[in-house]
Amino acid sequence: MVRVEMLAVGKELLIGRTLNTNAQWLGRRLGRKGTLLAEITTVDDDLSEIAAGLKGCLGRRADFVIVVGGLGPTPDDMTLKRISKGMGSALRLNREALSLIREHYAQRNLSSVKMTPARKKMATLPVGAKPVRNEVGTAPGVRLELEGTTVFCLPGVPSEMKDIFLRSVESEIATKLGKLYRKYISLKIEGIYESALAPMIESELRRHPGAYIKSHPRGVKEGKSRIELDVAMVSKSRKDAADSVVQVVREIKSKIESVGAAVVSERGTAPSGRR
Amino acid sequence: MVRVEMLAVGKELLIGRTLNTNAQWLGRRLGRKGTLLAEITTVDDDLSEIAAGLKGCLGRRADFVIVVGGLGPTPDDMTLKRISKGMGSALRLNREALSLIREHYAQRNLSSVKMTPARKKMATLPVGAKPVRNEVGTAPGVRLELEGTTVFCLPGVPSEMKDIFLRSVESEIATKLGKLYRKYISLKIEGIYESALAPMIESELRRHPGAYIKSHPRGVKEGKSRIELDVAMVSKSRKDAADSVVQVVREIKSKIESVGAAVVSERGTAPSGRR
Repeated sequence: MVRVEMLAVGKELLIGRTLNTNAQWLGRRLGRKGTLLAEITTVDDDLSEIAAGLKGCLGRRADFVIVVGGLGPTPDDMTLKRISKGMGSALRLNREALSLIREHYAQRNLSSVKMTPARKKMATLPVGAKPVRNEVGTAPGVRLELEGTTVFCLPGVPSEMKDIFLRSVESEIATKLGKLYRKYISLKIEGIYESALAPMIESELRRHPGAYIKSHPRGVKEGKSRIELDVAMVSKSRKDAADSVVQVVREIKSKIESVGAAVVSERGTAPSGRR
Repeated sequence: MVRVEMLAVGKELLIGRTLNTNAQWLGRRLGRKGTLLAEITTVDDDLSEIAAGLKGCLGRRADFVIVVGGLGPTPDDMTLKRISKGMGSALRLNREALSLIREHYAQRNLSSVKMTPARKKMATLPVGAKPVRNEVGTAPGVRLELEGTTVFCLPGVPSEMKDIFLRSVESEIATKLGKLYRKYISLKIEGIYESALAPMIESELRRHPGAYIKSHPRGVKEGKSRIELDVAMVSKSRKDAADSVVQVVREIKSKIESVGAAVVSERGTAPSGRR
């Protein structure tokens, strides 16, 4: 089991200014690879909060921690400062990072931009860390190893986070995971309460111990209780994953139909939700 | 300082099926009261993950922990089971909770609904816990004290979570906070890079140590870099909060105008973001 955690840094997430769509996006990407974000920790732009959050991830022996936010030029961007302090390793101007930043400005015909302290801050990394190319924004991502955990620090701006993740993070995680197949079917059910569905799910989980079966109540409409039911299975065998999910769905269907409820739609694509 | 944390429970949040809009809503409600979610921890529907998450919140000596999710009738709803285990206190059928559930069904002309084990599960609380009325759904919320921390467990369905929070949680937190005033102004700025804005923010933060000043880059449009800048201050004095924010905004405006950038809009309402 490969453990991937996310550490989201930024007060905007804690006062509700910003919705954490980065977490959803990362969760979906990992879901398609057969895993998930094992935990998401969201902390304030504060040295001791970042330190405690990261310590938690390392203590849980995460294989990968994706730190998102706190990489920019402003004073509240303190992720790397905190990490270097925690590592007991100095922050130093990183030549490779500096040249990535110069390249970024040059590509935008901004070669005249001066390397002010705020700009140099984005190239100042803990000793031992490697910058990771950012094709969208200025601040490079950062990759480092801490106590056996691979830590990627990515900017909080979604387009930059996604770009760096897809180019330089995802394949490393996928290699560690190995090849996994995930089959997923989501049912819309009408006419049964979640409390009546519960024992059916329980018996399916006993018969198919590796399966993921989860109900999401969607209220009552025209006197009928509506539920979305997700069934998923991850396996090294594509056939095993598909067979299990199809069987669970067939069994659940037959059980709910026997009490007068019905499956009104079925879809077997990737998991979805609000975008 | 009153510390409020959120512990969100549910695999749907970790695989990206569901966007954590509950966290944003809670952050905003607390923001208006002059505080914030000090930390958001999101964990899987798994006894040991819930235990570790809750232990973290208690270890950080949160005054309040709002646990969201894992209260329903299905097997993956295991928040209370985990809490009772952690407290070393048995789970027992709670008469008050049971009568709230019966009342819920009665109000919907469903008095004939049988109290199956799945339904009784929603009324089975750790000894010492109190049920909290849920006017929208079936499962009551739960209030309990753990190691000096007040823990509220709320359902993950947003309409139910919000209803219980507004009726029974918010006022208790507000009383502990005391009367606080929060002034907030958000500026849209054009024509300056975040790296050029950074030293201006830094000098403002030195002059106004209690202030919150944070820039959010919004890309480049028609050759102009665009930034949203939030300025906020919380104080026991309404006047002090307002005066500080207005002064910071005036100073920042004058600084950015001196380098040819401009404030293109200003708004002083509650913080906003995606809903």
